[in-house]
Amino acid sequence: MSMTTEPQTIPGYTYASATLAPSPVGADDLRLLETTLLWTDDDERYLRMAGEVLADQVEAVLDLWYGYVGSHPHLVHYFTGPDGEPNADYLARVRARFGQWIRDLCARPRDATWLAYQEEIAQRHLDRKNETDGVDSVPMIPLRYMVAFIYPITATIRDFLAAKGHSDDDVEGMFQAWFKSVVLTVTLWSRPYAPDRW
Amino acid sequence: MSMTTEPQTIPGYTYASATLAPSPVGADDLRLLETTLLWTDDDERYLRMAGEVLADQVEAVLDLWYGYVGSHPHLVHYFTGPDGEPNADYLARVRARFGQWIRDLCARPRDATWLAYQEEIAQRHLDRKNETDGVDSVPMIPLRYMVAFIYPITATIRDFLAAKGHSDDDVEGMFQAWFKSVVLTVTLWSRPYAPDRW
Repeated sequence: MSMTTEPQTIPGYTYASATLAPSPVGADDLRLLETTLLWTDDDERYLRMAGEVLADQVEAVLDLWYGYVGSHPHLVHYFTGPDGEPNADYLARVRARFGQWIRDLCARPRDATWLAYQEEIAQRHLDRKNETDGVDSVPMIPLRYMVAFIYPITATIRDFLAAKGHSDDDVEGMFQAWFKSVVLTVTLWSRPYAPDRW
Repeated sequence: MSMTTEPQTIPGYTYASATLAPSPVGADDLRLLETTLLWTDDDERYLRMAGEVLADQVEAVLDLWYGYVGSHPHLVHYFTGPDGEPNADYLARVRARFGQWIRDLCARPRDATWLAYQEEIAQRHLDRKNETDGVDSVPMIPLRYMVAFIYPITATIRDFLAAKGHSDDDVEGMFQAWFKSVVLTVTLWSRPYAPDRW
């Protein structure tokens, strides 16, 4: 039995929605970033493999990541309301989309549709934080934590990638593809923080 | 025989100079970032170990990194002059400081002096690019490549960390400490790109 939520039932998940604006980041920009990340055809293959390996572990990954955020007051702060208390409904809604982000990162082609949704997510950390979930919370996630999250989101995935009996080479290949994908994602999510300097 | 340049002879290297402004990033901000990166006492120990392991490999690391930049026109672009050709003297001056950055990252205490120099380096990628070396080059490094560089600068270090016969556990420990340190550095270097949203 999978605990996976079907994408169409995830509140605020608007991947490929006709209402999404195109990303200001074009295909050429994306290809240069992939080149900078030393992207290879092997990474595509390993990313798909990672998606299969993580499929029935997404809730466990989220348990770990939410445990990490929840145990650090300076991070859970971004989910608090005017009373300073964490908003459980807000946390749950973001969690469902975070899980879908794991699946999408491993499985979706990185095309204009993918870029448009990365830009949507980027804005949901900044000027449009709280809007999707209709909550009254802290107005933005500072850039410092967007960049810093590259470490925990990357380092903690390795044990999950190794949990299905794959060879050391395959685990390493999946890990490198994941690492590159996380850095690529955060790079794209940093754009609206410095639109003229990005 | 070491090929190490003595810090005091590196052009433009102004670590701990009395003329440096204090960083707008305070010790409390830094501690919260370290916490976000899951920093532990082991990381301090492993970072010192990495410094010892890398000491006589710094030029080889720089050869690899400069080969990577030099083989990608969209990256070497940031070292070109008005004629579109790479400025060899500029590349050499930055290279010497890049090598010292490796040594400093592993060995220096992360105090107010360290923070002030990280801010100085940050500005040298942005509003004050070219000033230190008195060159006529591209005016800034875009944020996208600052963030994306986390991947190559982290992933390529592992073979160097493993080159001196340390145990797998020690290599892994050094790698994690290096990874955290690179993410921390890039986080701090991203500040002037979005000062009001950092």
